[in-house]
Amino acid sequence: MSEDYERGLAQFRQMVGAERIDALIERFGAVCPDFEKEVVSFVGGRIWTRGGIDLKTRSLCSICVLAALGRTQALRLNFDMALNNGASVEEIFEALFQVAAYAGFPAMWDALLMLEEVLDSRGSQGT
Amino acid sequence: MSEDYERGLAQFRQMVGAERIDALIERFGAVCPDFEKEVVSFVGGRIWTRGGIDLKTRSLCSICVLAALGRTQALRLNFDMALNNGASVEEIFEALFQVAAYAGFPAMWDALLMLEEVLDSRGSQGT
Amino acid sequence: MSEDYERGLAQFRQMVGAERIDALIERFGAVCPDFEKEVVSFVGGRIWTRGGIDLKTRSLCSICVLAALGRTQALRLNFDMALNNGASVEEIFEALFQVAAYAGFPAMWDALLMLEEVLDSRGSQGT
Amino acid sequence: MSEDYERGLAQFRQMVGAERIDALIERFGAVCPDFEKEVVSFVGGRIWTRGGIDLKTRSLCSICVLAALGRTQALRLNFDMALNNGASVEEIFEALFQVAAYAGFPAMWDALLMLEEVLDSRGSQGT
Amino acid sequence: MSEDYERGLAQFRQMVGAERIDALIERFGAVCPDFEKEVVSFVGGRIWTRGGIDLKTRSLCSICVLAALGRTQALRLNFDMALNNGASVEEIFEALFQVAAYAGFPAMWDALLMLEEVLDSRGSQGT
Amino acid sequence: MSEDYERGLAQFRQMVGAERIDALIERFGAVCPDFEKEVVSFVGGRIWTRGGIDLKTRSLCSICVLAALGRTQALRLNFDMALNNGASVEEIFEALFQVAAYAGFPAMWDALLMLEEVLDSRGSQGT
Repeated sequence: MSEDYERGLAQFRQMVGAERIDALIERFGAVCPDFEKEVVSFVGGRIWTRGGIDLKTRSLCSICVLAALGRTQALRLNFDMALNNGASVEEIFEALFQVAAYAGFPAMWDALLMLEEVLDSRGSQGT
Repeated sequence: MSEDYERGLAQFRQMVGAERIDALIERFGAVCPDFEKEVVSFVGGRIWTRGGIDLKTRSLCSICVLAALGRTQALRLNFDMALNNGASVEEIFEALFQVAAYAGFPAMWDALLMLEEVLDSRGSQGT
Repeated sequence: MSEDYERGLAQFRQMVGAERIDALIERFGAVCPDFEKEVVSFVGGRIWTRGGIDLKTRSLCSICVLAALGRTQALRLNFDMALNNGASVEEIFEALFQVAAYAGFPAMWDALLMLEEVLDSRGSQGT
Repeated sequence: MSEDYERGLAQFRQMVGAERIDALIERFGAVCPDFEKEVVSFVGGRIWTRGGIDLKTRSLCSICVLAALGRTQALRLNFDMALNNGASVEEIFEALFQVAAYAGFPAMWDALLMLEEVLDSRGSQGT
Repeated sequence: MSEDYERGLAQFRQMVGAERIDALIERFGAVCPDFEKEVVSFVGGRIWTRGGIDLKTRSLCSICVLAALGRTQALRLNFDMALNNGASVEEIFEALFQVAAYAGFPAMWDALLMLEEVLDSRGSQGT
Repeated sequence: MSEDYERGLAQFRQMVGAERIDALIERFGAVCPDFEKEVVSFVGGRIWTRGGIDLKTRSLCSICVLAALGRTQALRLNFDMALNNGASVEEIFEALFQVAAYAGFPAMWDALLMLEEVLDSRGSQGT
């Protein structure tokens, strides 16, 4: 296990919760183990750990990229991570208004429905 | 002149500089006056003035959308606005690293070259 | 309630049907009230009411943007609005053939399945 | 020379002008002859000749796809073709306002600058 | 039935299986018969039959385009065709790692889930 | 200097030529040193060195992603790398025909003009 992987795993555990990230890692591992390895090492270990901006800002930036491109799975995870990183629902709305202006209203609409799902799922889990 | 337009104009003047925004408005007006009107009223007056997140965060979010989609003109302007809104070059880099991870390295590469142009242009103007 | 909002609401009521738009507005309002407000005011009140091209042409143009970008929710709504604005299914096909040539066949394929859903839903409602 | 190619060539000659399309065909032919053949046969001969909507509407639809996706070369050509197909500059603006609402203002901005180039070029050629 | 259509039908039958392509053609035909005709004639008859690179490479290239753009239906079909054209699951992973690097990890994630569905469906059919 | 970086540097030197990659690295380093480091380590050292498909196939896949998304700088570099990795111009054309079918003809058009530039530049350098 590389140093990047270890740092990425710790970072994702903090942002997603240990139980949930382990389930996700197991799921990725069942589909394509190398994908799991690179996501944790590179995205987790080399990007999310960089510092320079706080994790909340990094989350809002990520949401903007993902909503603009319409990437389903990662958008759902990043809404959850944003909330765990201290972003309020209202702050996520503000990030998405920049998406509406710069990538069009329909991108914000699709994203809002996904956010609603995430909030419902968190509500029903008492988190 | 609608209230939204007035607020948008004041907002853009603050973020872009009065001289530069007036030149841009004149240019838009020469091509398509209604576009100028809606950009100032809606994007400036209704979106950028919303509050809830600070202008620096809003700028970083905007840059992420624009770099992901490869929108040339607005990306250039938003780099300038981000710097005026208090983002350091290093903070812009961090926003762009989320673009690299979530929209691919080539999107960050194209954006960095544009950022370099903006920095060169500001440098040569002594700003 | 601003003038733009009132004009937008009347415009959407005409294009989507009063019952359906009220349900949509209520739904948006439950997720993010400001999104509802801006969609109705800006997209409805300032864009769809512009004139200069007829509503059918405006609908076909919208479908082309949304199919090219793969925006799910707005594409579904715009197929419905296009039919209400007087576009025949055959005219929608023709707009989508431009999508096939200029954004690739897969964009038209995804859009056709969505159109089929809309037509089925209208058929079962006797509209 | 297939039937599709002949129909496509006639169609493009009508929409672009014989001299200009011949220059374009020669240019494509120098880069990749099969590309030229398929563009003329398929895009020209099988799509643009379909009927069912008029050529002006087909042009506005095409512009919307191309502006949403930011395709440079084809957008320039399609602005020219739209004008030759009877679209006024104002009608092109209206199509682009749907792009602003549904793909974001920056997509309309980039497209307007390209349109301006096309108009300048036509103006200086006395067309 | 044009020569292109016949060649396309034979090509798709070879790559997708006669039973499955006939079901797909019937389905397309029910939604939009001309779409079916053009997909088979152009995509099947004029593009997939070109030669110059082997079908496995052509499949990997197609997967890369579709995963980058997030085109759902065509991506599912092309995963199936890639496997029928001799690509191993591991080779498909490698193509998708280029998507991760150049279009971002989230595009590979969405694609992997679709690939998993295709593999499950093939597994349960004993193919 | 990490192991990934060293492997990435060696890989890019082989594919791009030592002189050219050093110039590129110096250029990246002047704009954003961390970007240079991650591109070489991750894209070069962890992705391009994976094996499982040959470098020519990997190049054609990359070109397809980049042409579909319209990423300028990386597309230019990848055309050069594809030629160095043993792809003929004809094989690149075939990859791009999949782009035409699946991302639309305009994406292939923009890509062909870039390829032409790369070929001209190589021709004039006697490579």
